[in-house]
Amino acid sequence: MDPIKKSIRDLVIANRILANEGIVDGYGHVSVRHPLRADRYLLSRSRSPELVVADDIMEFTLDGRPANTKDDRPPYLERFIHGAIYDARPEINSVVHSHSESVLPYSVTKRPLVPVFHAAGPIGTRIPVWDIRAKFGDTNLLVSCVDHGRDLAGCLQDGNVVLMRGHGFSAGAKSLIQALWISIYLPANARVLTTAIALGGEITALSDAEAAHQAALDPESPAIQRTWEYWTRRAGCAEMLDEK
Amino acid sequence: MDPIKKSIRDLVIANRILANEGIVDGYGHVSVRHPLRADRYLLSRSRSPELVVADDIMEFTLDGRPANTKDDRPPYLERFIHGAIYDARPEINSVVHSHSESVLPYSVTKRPLVPVFHAAGPIGTRIPVWDIRAKFGDTNLLVSCVDHGRDLAGCLQDGNVVLMRGHGFSAGAKSLIQALWISIYLPANARVLTTAIALGGEITALSDAEAAHQAALDPESPAIQRTWEYWTRRAGCAEMLDEK
Amino acid sequence: MDPIKKSIRDLVIANRILANEGIVDGYGHVSVRHPLRADRYLLSRSRSPELVVADDIMEFTLDGRPANTKDDRPPYLERFIHGAIYDARPEINSVVHSHSESVLPYSVTKRPLVPVFHAAGPIGTRIPVWDIRAKFGDTNLLVSCVDHGRDLAGCLQDGNVVLMRGHGFSAGAKSLIQALWISIYLPANARVLTTAIALGGEITALSDAEAAHQAALDPESPAIQRTWEYWTRRAGCAEMLDEK
Amino acid sequence: MDPIKKSIRDLVIANRILANEGIVDGYGHVSVRHPLRADRYLLSRSRSPELVVADDIMEFTLDGRPANTKDDRPPYLERFIHGAIYDARPEINSVVHSHSESVLPYSVTKRPLVPVFHAAGPIGTRIPVWDIRAKFGDTNLLVSCVDHGRDLAGCLQDGNVVLMRGHGFSAGAKSLIQALWISIYLPANARVLTTAIALGGEITALSDAEAAHQAALDPESPAIQRTWEYWTRRAGCAEMLDEK
Repeated sequence: MDPIKKSIRDLVIANRILANEGIVDGYGHVSVRHPLRADRYLLSRSRSPELVVADDIMEFTLDGRPANTKDDRPPYLERFIHGAIYDARPEINSVVHSHSESVLPYSVTKRPLVPVFHAAGPIGTRIPVWDIRAKFGDTNLLVSCVDHGRDLAGCLQDGNVVLMRGHGFSAGAKSLIQALWISIYLPANARVLTTAIALGGEITALSDAEAAHQAALDPESPAIQRTWEYWTRRAGCAEMLDEK
Repeated sequence: MDPIKKSIRDLVIANRILANEGIVDGYGHVSVRHPLRADRYLLSRSRSPELVVADDIMEFTLDGRPANTKDDRPPYLERFIHGAIYDARPEINSVVHSHSESVLPYSVTKRPLVPVFHAAGPIGTRIPVWDIRAKFGDTNLLVSCVDHGRDLAGCLQDGNVVLMRGHGFSAGAKSLIQALWISIYLPANARVLTTAIALGGEITALSDAEAAHQAALDPESPAIQRTWEYWTRRAGCAEMLDEK
Repeated sequence: MDPIKKSIRDLVIANRILANEGIVDGYGHVSVRHPLRADRYLLSRSRSPELVVADDIMEFTLDGRPANTKDDRPPYLERFIHGAIYDARPEINSVVHSHSESVLPYSVTKRPLVPVFHAAGPIGTRIPVWDIRAKFGDTNLLVSCVDHGRDLAGCLQDGNVVLMRGHGFSAGAKSLIQALWISIYLPANARVLTTAIALGGEITALSDAEAAHQAALDPESPAIQRTWEYWTRRAGCAEMLDEK
Repeated sequence: MDPIKKSIRDLVIANRILANEGIVDGYGHVSVRHPLRADRYLLSRSRSPELVVADDIMEFTLDGRPANTKDDRPPYLERFIHGAIYDARPEINSVVHSHSESVLPYSVTKRPLVPVFHAAGPIGTRIPVWDIRAKFGDTNLLVSCVDHGRDLAGCLQDGNVVLMRGHGFSAGAKSLIQALWISIYLPANARVLTTAIALGGEITALSDAEAAHQAALDPESPAIQRTWEYWTRRAGCAEMLDEK
């Protein structure tokens, strides 16, 4: 299959998966780095992820301009999240941005969001919280320019997840399936941790080594790959997997 | 498209959206001001929002009488919420009333419901709680006459949202899509805040300026408008958008 | 329509509604008093409510024996709940038994379940908790004989709802729609109250007079009746309403 | 019906039920002991339970090797959970492993998970928590070899449920329906208990005798069997029950 066509197909499926699993609603987005050009990425036009089709996918430069200068369809206002992370982190090939309700509380309190169950290992044990107000003062909180994006990417450092105060989270990973995995299990982990906190007393989080062992699982292994088939079929996209 | 026909179509879609997004159940309602007559509004007959069709929409005077005096279908008992807000607030063109379970707890406790994430900016940073008992004593809590409605509208003042003790909330906005937005993100914000409170410690709410920046987003912008397509399709009303 | 046929049809719809609204799962049941004989009631054979059809409905004496002595289909073990309440309370014509997860916590703690929003007024302001252990010692907690049922009905006194420790609740009302209403809004109220408690501080419950005003709403009024159409259609039973 | 064919059919249905009831997602698995050979068990190849079909079922020896040595399809990494429990507990004929979000908090806190409502009686009143770290140090937390499995089975002792720290739970029972029952009502009980804890004050759990009375219910009784029909139809597998 043509690598660009495959990237677009998988990106469409990923949009539908994130919507179907409740990670994004009318807002939020997912991108992949261009398979042939490291200085470009693929991202839908401004459209809710559940509705995205192949024709909606646009190609962007890392500073957020459409590669096709004649393409005047409105892009996502917050596309700068994606470009800035791809620019700062050459090994990252997929980025997700979400307003997950399960994660948001950890962006507005001092309670650290730590991994408490194995599947959440790849989120890492020290997740930073980026507050746009620290550098940019009172805004509408949106990452609406290159400077915002770079500041966010700087806060992410070498991690996979950054919380955004009063806004949501952004996550990046080496592959699309890993970015999906993190985006789906980060909110799940937040819910488990929230309940554990409500139970009271000491909580046993994953150790750094345990989280690292999980993060090291081969994304091509059957154990990881089987979620791709599962999420795709649940999202009603089974037939897309058969496209040539 | 004929402005009245379009208003009715959009109002039917809004009914279905609010039901599908879990904001209303058998109860709750949404209205729009008449597009040609500021002293009238459009609202369904007494029917659960999920079931409302175009023929159910009635036209009311601001004191809650059917404009068509021969229309003897039972109206909503609480239509006075709508007329009173339209009367007191000429710039408001759409009103929603809901018993959202996520919001109700803030109507029976002293804990203020404040916006903690960006999408909730338009709810405002100081949301009043109206208690029907303060002026009208023990009742069934329903806004069942003009006097109740006016007292409620007075409590709303110049805001967009008023909580109603032991009953729900009412929200008004300049446009239907903004009223939907507020009605959908108010409960979401309540859930996020509730969880943040459970995590313990200090909570960072939106500042007044941040909330105002969000509220100032152009409702015609692609970022706002894309939710209309999204919610409409989720509610199974896609084909209504093609009506002429 | 023949009154018995109508009772059976409505009872089937009620089974589906309670399942669809999440009030019952594989367990739980709903009955109506026989429309022509006050000493009989109608209840499904032992079958999960979501699956009940007209042929499943059996007629029972108030002590739980099948009226048709040749009908050897297994009945619900806990049918004694129904007969005992009909026997003790001539004005009650419908009974629901549920293991609702939202209500159960109030059956195993000392925190009273009080109505905090208007729709929950009919549950009453003083809901007793029946503990089978008090009179019958260690059992499997099921109401599996006439004596259990009578003890439960005695605890209900003149109310509409009784919680059952570690088991669920039973509710009775003058009409089927009122029994549905109570069974659907009791768990909703429990969720709202649980969240209000989590917010901390004092909670404003409905006053006795407010609850009574709500409970006095005419079940034949459009405001109450519209839920019947709503719940029925959501449960996929719209076509049953057209049966003759 | 051929006993092996029936075991496989029921196992497929059980996979779908557990997925549909939210007990497993992309991960988690269910097995049954081979109906003719006590030293073998039946378990799907590495596939998400919602997607499992009859052809996916493989036969394993108790140490986790495929009975058909030419079958090179990837098995579940954690199949050792199943074999070790069948080996240690001859009376157990079905095993479920799940990462249920409702149960996980009890695996990372000191708060005991105790049964608080009748349907949870079979989970037992003293549920151990197994921590892989105690014996095996920092790992990815997965039960990925015979030694891990045996250590887990040893912790289970003579109970039906063992929690696994930061990972989930494993449950075993005499029959498939009992294993499903436990796996579905264990998370339900966890949610009820979590809410009861949030309400504050003392909680009345089931007594040892009450739990034992519930656990003693005949799995062939109509009261237990009706959930099989219910769960199967909800999972969209009704037609499988008619297979010959």
